[in-house]
Amino acid sequence: VRANGFGEMVCSAASVMEALEDRWGALIMRDLILGLTRYEDLRKSSSVTNATLTARLRSLEANGLIERRQYQSRPDRYEYHPTAKGRDIRLVLQAMMQVGDRWNGGAENAPLSAIDRRTGHRVALALVDLETGNRVEGGDIAIVAGPGADEIGRWRLDAGVTSRLK
Amino acid sequence: VRANGFGEMVCSAASVMEALEDRWGALIMRDLILGLTRYEDLRKSSSVTNATLTARLRSLEANGLIERRQYQSRPDRYEYHPTAKGRDIRLVLQAMMQVGDRWNGGAENAPLSAIDRRTGHRVALALVDLETGNRVEGGDIAIVAGPGADEIGRWRLDAGVTSRLK
Repeated sequence: VRANGFGEMVCSAASVMEALEDRWGALIMRDLILGLTRYEDLRKSSSVTNATLTARLRSLEANGLIERRQYQSRPDRYEYHPTAKGRDIRLVLQAMMQVGDRWNGGAENAPLSAIDRRTGHRVALALVDLETGNRVEGGDIAIVAGPGADEIGRWRLDAGVTSRLK
Repeated sequence: VRANGFGEMVCSAASVMEALEDRWGALIMRDLILGLTRYEDLRKSSSVTNATLTARLRSLEANGLIERRQYQSRPDRYEYHPTAKGRDIRLVLQAMMQVGDRWNGGAENAPLSAIDRRTGHRVALALVDLETGNRVEGGDIAIVAGPGADEIGRWRLDAGVTSRLK
């Protein structure tokens, strides 16, 4: 397990936040995953400044989430594409969309919908039981230490349980 | 639909990133959702500076994700608890955990596991068909305009489709 920049603790959620860097990084990944590839389109879509867009494209590339492909020379111009690692971010963006939709008036106000192309049905993330494959309904979910838990991670879980019992 | 600070565009994912503010906000929400409540525990868990922790607790409270409860007077001391809105962030953190686990060596290295307390089985987020309730296997998912789409949102989707067809 790779330790990350957050005080060297091991946390998978933190490693995703670190790779995205900030909300602008997340928005740029959203646009690239939606299929935008060119600098000017990314700029129009996200309304970020040139300085921020240039910096985030560099750090997303350094973090392995996107790759640059030259499509023109003299002057050199590049397109940006999510890597396989970058496409993993779809799960996080889908979760953010669902939560944001809930906060902003529900599905009937949703700016985007995810659909299964084969059926045209709307799809959404839900918790499933990894042994049975069945959807977990009204579940009582516990977060427990996994095989890669480190000392601070175990302390955090214990402290959380202790607080809840107070 | 509430417009958010990102160039006034309507984007549900962006409204979540805005509410969390940055990676530190996300980490603090992770800790509060795990049950930590007190300033010193939050500080130990996340290794953030006092200045950052104080600022993020204020903004998470201003954004309606957490509430402060006094538990002692003279000197006044407070505990921090996620609100119902704040607990919605669990979905986003679960998605980040799954992606981070994938990047960092898979379930056998995972620092945390989510389990169903009733069965003890591990659970994870997966896409389900909202009409049938069935899990979508090997799906071909399209992101399309929803009922709340605005002009820039429609442009973004069209531009993404056009780029992909090039």
